[in-house]
Amino acid sequence: MRVNGERFLKDLHDLRQFGASGVGKGVVRPAYSKADVAAREWLAARMSDAGLEPRFDAVGNLFGLAPGRSLLMGSHSDSQPEGGWLDGALGVVMALEIARAAQEAGGPAVSVANFQDEEGRFGVTTGSAIWSGQLPLARADTLTDSAGVSFAEARAAMAHLAGDPIDPARFTGFVECHIEQGPWLHEAGQVIGVVTDIVGIRDMTITMEGEQNHAGTTPMHRRRDAFQALSAFNTALNDRLRNIVTPQSVWTIGHVSLHPGAHSIVPGRVEFSMQWRDGDTTRLKRMEDVIRDTLAEIAAAHGMNLSFSDMLGLEPVVMHPAFRAALGQSAEIRVPGRWREMQSGALHDATNVAALMPAAMMFVPSIGGISHAFGEDTYEADLLTGLHVMADALPALAAAR
Amino acid sequence: MRVNGERFLKDLHDLRQFGASGVGKGVVRPAYSKADVAAREWLAARMSDAGLEPRFDAVGNLFGLAPGRSLLMGSHSDSQPEGGWLDGALGVVMALEIARAAQEAGGPAVSVANFQDEEGRFGVTTGSAIWSGQLPLARADTLTDSAGVSFAEARAAMAHLAGDPIDPARFTGFVECHIEQGPWLHEAGQVIGVVTDIVGIRDMTITMEGEQNHAGTTPMHRRRDAFQALSAFNTALNDRLRNIVTPQSVWTIGHVSLHPGAHSIVPGRVEFSMQWRDGDTTRLKRMEDVIRDTLAEIAAAHGMNLSFSDMLGLEPVVMHPAFRAALGQSAEIRVPGRWREMQSGALHDATNVAALMPAAMMFVPSIGGISHAFGEDTYEADLLTGLHVMADALPALAAAR
Repeated sequence: MRVNGERFLKDLHDLRQFGASGVGKGVVRPAYSKADVAAREWLAARMSDAGLEPRFDAVGNLFGLAPGRSLLMGSHSDSQPEGGWLDGALGVVMALEIARAAQEAGGPAVSVANFQDEEGRFGVTTGSAIWSGQLPLARADTLTDSAGVSFAEARAAMAHLAGDPIDPARFTGFVECHIEQGPWLHEAGQVIGVVTDIVGIRDMTITMEGEQNHAGTTPMHRRRDAFQALSAFNTALNDRLRNIVTPQSVWTIGHVSLHPGAHSIVPGRVEFSMQWRDGDTTRLKRMEDVIRDTLAEIAAAHGMNLSFSDMLGLEPVVMHPAFRAALGQSAEIRVPGRWREMQSGALHDATNVAALMPAAMMFVPSIGGISHAFGEDTYEADLLTGLHVMADALPALAAAR
Repeated sequence: MRVNGERFLKDLHDLRQFGASGVGKGVVRPAYSKADVAAREWLAARMSDAGLEPRFDAVGNLFGLAPGRSLLMGSHSDSQPEGGWLDGALGVVMALEIARAAQEAGGPAVSVANFQDEEGRFGVTTGSAIWSGQLPLARADTLTDSAGVSFAEARAAMAHLAGDPIDPARFTGFVECHIEQGPWLHEAGQVIGVVTDIVGIRDMTITMEGEQNHAGTTPMHRRRDAFQALSAFNTALNDRLRNIVTPQSVWTIGHVSLHPGAHSIVPGRVEFSMQWRDGDTTRLKRMEDVIRDTLAEIAAAHGMNLSFSDMLGLEPVVMHPAFRAALGQSAEIRVPGRWREMQSGALHDATNVAALMPAAMMFVPSIGGISHAFGEDTYEADLLTGLHVMADALPALAAAR
């Protein structure tokens, strides 16, 4: 089977035009935006051209189906509010090229998946979580983005494309190629990462409510200032988590909304995101306990009322051994000594799909480890190496059960 | 001269309907909003009814002019994004009632001022700062609100009303009644505060820029997280300021904007407000030095690029002795032992007007010290006491130079 590297790179660059940000190779293509829907329609047409049957489900997950049972490959084409051209897009376009080349070669049968809202405008890997049955659609519909738009409202943008569910039993397994999004491959001068396991994640929104008041007339010792409570929580949390985490554990406060948010007003309320990740379920729970305990203490000390959103989360998952072996063998032949096995600190659709069928992931390097930013990039030589390693592994991947 | 308490309260309640929030007596009437412009047009009509000549200047400051030289009284009718019904409105409506009663009694001549954007959507007491010549219009036009709208764009909403400048030389002095906005009068069971001096204020917007990155794949020790830098700055600043401030000094971070503000992204940039107030110019400067030094240290330690907006500020000002004496004597007769002299921790238009003419302020209590919030309120009996104390003092205020 011969993959076509030029055709693959051209598709990637064509896809980049949907939501091209004007900053480097940056892309603004969040789930259900005009650019996102247009990109999915374009990809559906490319699938059709490749001899696959394009099918959208009720939430905008797009499948390009090969006839009969097949291996499923893919990722997602939605982006972060400010994303790069490869995050997700690489896995979809690589799957398209492999499926197309496989059709041209007369087999093996490969289908393509392009999941919706992997970047979590509404939740965590929303589209594949719904497809895999882990997030009921009725519950997903009640999720809201940071602007207060509901998932149900947002997915109406794709209602004209919506079709029936795609049966997971059609597929023998799932393989996803993705950029690493971290610095390790790039710094080691390596070009392929075979993923051993994907960390688990916990994510919630926390609200602390104190007392809104005048920033000139309210003495410091009488304030119930929501920003001060947040800052005190963050400081205490950093201290306490250090005792229970590993160097691979991460935690992030990435969204903060102060109310009312004026220079001259002591902020009475803060709503903020708290997300943490680790490869070990027990440690995720221990981190949660520290977070909740610290919040309760700080809220009491600062006179805050405390409330929590539902906690969204995905468990750590181990990648399928036969798939890992197939990818590793292919990498060792193509780039001997220049690949490694590694954990994924980023969450991926493979986490959800692994609940349904054997699943695996392969990484290519991110220059400087930059991701979820306009500056995200990968050398095209490395993209091509990824394509060839995956194509070489295809017979073994398609045969594995 | 007889003021009409019922008419005064009715005007206050009528004014409250412009931007009534639906939460208690809350008001949403920020500068140049539809509600603000409508309220100013309504007030202009009330001035006309009272025999005053209504005049708007280029930025929407509204004056109701008595013929010849006169005492100027007033405040502002714009509100905070979430404000109360009395902050500013009380001083304007009280001035209207006193000017109207004085017209009915055949003197003394009283004009009414209603300044624009006292609440600082764009700066600090913007309208009176422009009128008093302390903020050049060309510079004001470049100021932006937290949504990025410029002052020049916003004031276009009142272009149809804009007229020539009003000459400050028409006025013999300025007296402003205002709610205290702090807890002291209410807690002491007192009903009148005669202001000795108004604190000075410094206000700026600070930006720290680190590196936006993936919240799963970026190890904690490699992050240049703008929220973490802000939190570390806030913690260090609180510690250091304690050594140089008095119990009257205040400092506030009321606005925080994280970029891009997503759960799964290490925030690469934060823009936040830093405001501080004190009655002493030297201490204001010492606080500024601590703020700038701490920021520089934190920025270096966290790998942040640091930038500052222009610093807006107003100096502490002392109220005019003859006016203070007139208000104090009037209060002592009407409510003996139930008034006090006090500093104003809130900024007011009187700060700016004091640069042009003798100026003074009088406070009535705020229930529970709540202000800049929907819950702000004052007992109507106290509002009426304020009206009568001011009316009693009018002959002495009008005669003082």
